[in-house]
Amino acid sequence: MKDVFHKDKTEFQVERLILFSDAVFAIAITLLIIEIRIPDISQGNVTNQSFWQAFLPSVPKFLGFLMSFSMIGLFWSKHHQMFGFVTNYTPKLIFLNLFYLCTIVLMPYTTAVYSEYSLGRYATLIIPFLFYSINIILAGVASLLLWQYVGNPKHKVTHIPIDKNYLLLAKLRALILPFAFLLSFVVCWIIGSIKGAMLLCLIPFYFNIVKWYAKRLNNSAK
Amino acid sequence: MKDVFHKDKTEFQVERLILFSDAVFAIAITLLIIEIRIPDISQGNVTNQSFWQAFLPSVPKFLGFLMSFSMIGLFWSKHHQMFGFVTNYTPKLIFLNLFYLCTIVLMPYTTAVYSEYSLGRYATLIIPFLFYSINIILAGVASLLLWQYVGNPKHKVTHIPIDKNYLLLAKLRALILPFAFLLSFVVCWIIGSIKGAMLLCLIPFYFNIVKWYAKRLNNSAK
Amino acid sequence: MKDVFHKDKTEFQVERLILFSDAVFAIAITLLIIEIRIPDISQGNVTNQSFWQAFLPSVPKFLGFLMSFSMIGLFWSKHHQMFGFVTNYTPKLIFLNLFYLCTIVLMPYTTAVYSEYSLGRYATLIIPFLFYSINIILAGVASLLLWQYVGNPKHKVTHIPIDKNYLLLAKLRALILPFAFLLSFVVCWIIGSIKGAMLLCLIPFYFNIVKWYAKRLNNSAK
Amino acid sequence: MKDVFHKDKTEFQVERLILFSDAVFAIAITLLIIEIRIPDISQGNVTNQSFWQAFLPSVPKFLGFLMSFSMIGLFWSKHHQMFGFVTNYTPKLIFLNLFYLCTIVLMPYTTAVYSEYSLGRYATLIIPFLFYSINIILAGVASLLLWQYVGNPKHKVTHIPIDKNYLLLAKLRALILPFAFLLSFVVCWIIGSIKGAMLLCLIPFYFNIVKWYAKRLNNSAK
Repeated sequence: MKDVFHKDKTEFQVERLILFSDAVFAIAITLLIIEIRIPDISQGNVTNQSFWQAFLPSVPKFLGFLMSFSMIGLFWSKHHQMFGFVTNYTPKLIFLNLFYLCTIVLMPYTTAVYSEYSLGRYATLIIPFLFYSINIILAGVASLLLWQYVGNPKHKVTHIPIDKNYLLLAKLRALILPFAFLLSFVVCWIIGSIKGAMLLCLIPFYFNIVKWYAKRLNNSAK
Repeated sequence: MKDVFHKDKTEFQVERLILFSDAVFAIAITLLIIEIRIPDISQGNVTNQSFWQAFLPSVPKFLGFLMSFSMIGLFWSKHHQMFGFVTNYTPKLIFLNLFYLCTIVLMPYTTAVYSEYSLGRYATLIIPFLFYSINIILAGVASLLLWQYVGNPKHKVTHIPIDKNYLLLAKLRALILPFAFLLSFVVCWIIGSIKGAMLLCLIPFYFNIVKWYAKRLNNSAK
Repeated sequence: MKDVFHKDKTEFQVERLILFSDAVFAIAITLLIIEIRIPDISQGNVTNQSFWQAFLPSVPKFLGFLMSFSMIGLFWSKHHQMFGFVTNYTPKLIFLNLFYLCTIVLMPYTTAVYSEYSLGRYATLIIPFLFYSINIILAGVASLLLWQYVGNPKHKVTHIPIDKNYLLLAKLRALILPFAFLLSFVVCWIIGSIKGAMLLCLIPFYFNIVKWYAKRLNNSAK
Repeated sequence: MKDVFHKDKTEFQVERLILFSDAVFAIAITLLIIEIRIPDISQGNVTNQSFWQAFLPSVPKFLGFLMSFSMIGLFWSKHHQMFGFVTNYTPKLIFLNLFYLCTIVLMPYTTAVYSEYSLGRYATLIIPFLFYSINIILAGVASLLLWQYVGNPKHKVTHIPIDKNYLLLAKLRALILPFAFLLSFVVCWIIGSIKGAMLLCLIPFYFNIVKWYAKRLNNSAK
C-alpha cells in the first residue's frame, strides 16, 4: 500500500516540476508582447497617416517578437519532448532545470534590447546581438546538460533507458541554435556589420542536415 | 506493464500541452488590465471631480478590456471544447497550437492600440481597428486549422472520431468572429468611418444563425 | 471501456477549468506588486534619509497591497472550496466562472486607484473607494451566483448534492465582503468622508456572526 | 464508492493548492526580469560604445536578478520538497501557504529596490538592504511555520509521519537564509556600511554546517 502511494507521489512531484517549468515558459513567452509599446501620437494631428508613421518604428520589434516567440516555443517543445521520458527527479535535475528556466526568463530582456538596437532604428549595433546570442547559447547549453543528465541511466530519472541514437540526435538538435548564433555573431564581428545576422536564415538548413543524418543513423541501425 | 505506462505518459504529455496553453491564455487575459493606466491627477487640485475628469478618458479602455476579455474567454472555451477530444499529440499539433497561442499573446497589444485610437479620444482611426480585426481573423483561422487537424482521424490525435456534423458546426463557429470583423472592417473602409464597427453588434445574431442551422442538421440526422 | 474513458476526460476537463482559474488568480495576485513603483531619488543627495522620505508615500500602497492580497487570497480559497464539489461542467458554469475571473482581473487596477487616491497622499477621495467597493461587490455577486448554480442539483455539476445548511452558509459568507463594502461606502457617502472606510475593520466581526449562526444551525440540525 | 471518490477529490484539492502556489512562484520569478529596463541611448550618437556605457549601470541589477532568481528557486524547491509529504489540507494550511506566497510576491519589489540603491549606482544605502533582508526573513519564517504545521501529525495533512530528524534538519535549513541576512544586516548596521553584505558569501558555508550536522545525526541514529 505504501509503495503504491509513494510511486503516486513521485509521479506528481515530477509533474509539479514540469508544470512549474511550463508556467515560467508561458509567462516568458507572453511577456514578450508587453515590451512593445503602442504608437504614441499624442502630439500633432491624429490621422491614419500619423498613426501609421508612429507605428512603423515598431515593425522591427514585431520581427523580434516573432523570432523570440518561435525560439521559446521551440525550447518549450524540446522540454516537452525531453520530460516525456522523465519519471523521477533528483536535486541536480531541479537545479539544471532552474538554470534552463533562468535563460528563458532572460529572453524578454535580450529580445527587447536586440529588437531596439540591432533590428530597429539603430540597426548598426552588434553588442545587443551579442547579448541575444549569448542568451540563446546559454539556453542551448542548459538544454544539452539536461539531455546529458536525463539520458544517463545512472541518474535513474527515466523509466526506460533512452535509445543511444535518439539521445545523440537530441543533443545535436540542442546545439543547432547555439551554433547558428555563434557562427552569425563571429561573422558579424569579422565583417564589422550586423548584416552577418542574415546567416540565421540558414537555421532550417541546419535542421535538415541533422534530419538527414538521423535517417542515415536509423538506416544503419536496421 | 510498459504499455500501461506509456499510455499514462502520453496522457500527461497531452495534459501538459493543454495546461501550457491555459497558462498562456490566463496571462494574456490578465495582462489586458495592465494596459489601463490609473488616472493621473498629480497636477492641480485633487478632488472627486478632478478624479472623475481624469478617469473619463479611460472609459473606452474598459470597453476594449471587456471586449477582449470576452474574446479571449470565448477562444479559451473553444480550445477547452476542442481539446476535450484530444488524447494524443504530434509535432504538427504542437506547432498549430503555438500559432494559435501566438495570436492570443498579441491580443493585449492590439487591444491597447484599438482602445486608444479607435474607441477612445481619437475615435476616428480605422487602421487600429484593422490591426484588431487581423488579430481576431488570425485567431479564428488558427482555430479552424486546429479543428481541421484534430477532426481528421488520419492524424490519430483523438480517441474516437468526431461526429461529422459536430465538426462542421465547430468550424462554422470558429469562422463567426473572423467573418464579423472582416465584414465590419470592409464596411468601415467603404463608408470611411469607424462607425462601421457597430456591425459587431450582430455577432450574437450570427451565433444564433449557426445555432438554428445546427438544429436543422440534427433534425435531418435523425 | 468507452464510459471509463469519458469519465476520465470529463474529470480532466473540469480540472482544466479549475487550473485555468488558478492561473488567473495567481497572476492577478502577483500583478498587485508591480503597481507599486520603487522610490525615485534620482534628484538630490542619495542618503538613507532621502530614501526613507521617497519611500514613505508608498506605505499606503503596501496597505492596499496587503488588503487586496488578502481579498484575492480569500476569493481563491472560496473558489477552491466550491470547486471541491464540482465534478462536471456546463457552458453556463464556464460563463459564470469567466465572469468571476473578470472581477478578479480588475483587482490590480482598482487596488492601484484606491491605494493612490483613497489611502495615500490624497486620502480624501471617495470615488476611488467606490470603484474598489464595486469591484468587491461584483466579485461577491459572482461568487453567490456560482454557489447558486453549483448548489442546484438540477444542473448536475456536483457528484453529491451539497448539504442545504452548508450551502446557505457558503452563500452568506459570499455576501459578507459585498455587504461590508456597501455599508462602508454608504457611510462614507453620508458623512462625506473616506473615514467611513474604517468600518471595514468590522469584517472579522461579520465573519464571527456567520460562524455563530453556523453553530446554531448545526446544533438545531442534530 | 463514495469513499474512493472523496479520496480522489481531496488529492486533487491538494494538487490545486500546490499548482496555484507554483503559478505564483513562476510569475514572481519571471517578473524579476521586467524590473530591469533596457539601456536608453535615445540622446547622442548610437554606437556600440554608447550602448555599452548605457548598459553598464544595469549590471548590478543583473546581480540582483541572479540573486533573487536563486532565492525564489531555492524557496520553490523547498516548497516542492515539503509538499511532497502533504496529502490533505486544512484552512490553516491554506492560510500559512498564502502568507508564504505573499512574501514571494514581494520579492520583485524588494529586489528592484535593493538592486537600485544597495548594489547599483548608490551602493551606500543600507535601508534597501534592510527591506530585502526583512523579505527573506519573512519568507524563512513562513517556511518554518509551514514545516512546523505540516510536520505535526496532529494536523493530519501528511500520509505518514515525517521522520523527526528529517524535520529538524528541514527547519534548520529554512532558518539558514533568515539567519544569514539577519547577521549581514546587523554587521552592516554596526560598521555603518553596506560592505557587511559580503557576509552573504558565507551562505554555502552555513549549508555545509547543516549538512555535516545531518550526517552526524544520521550516524547516531543507526
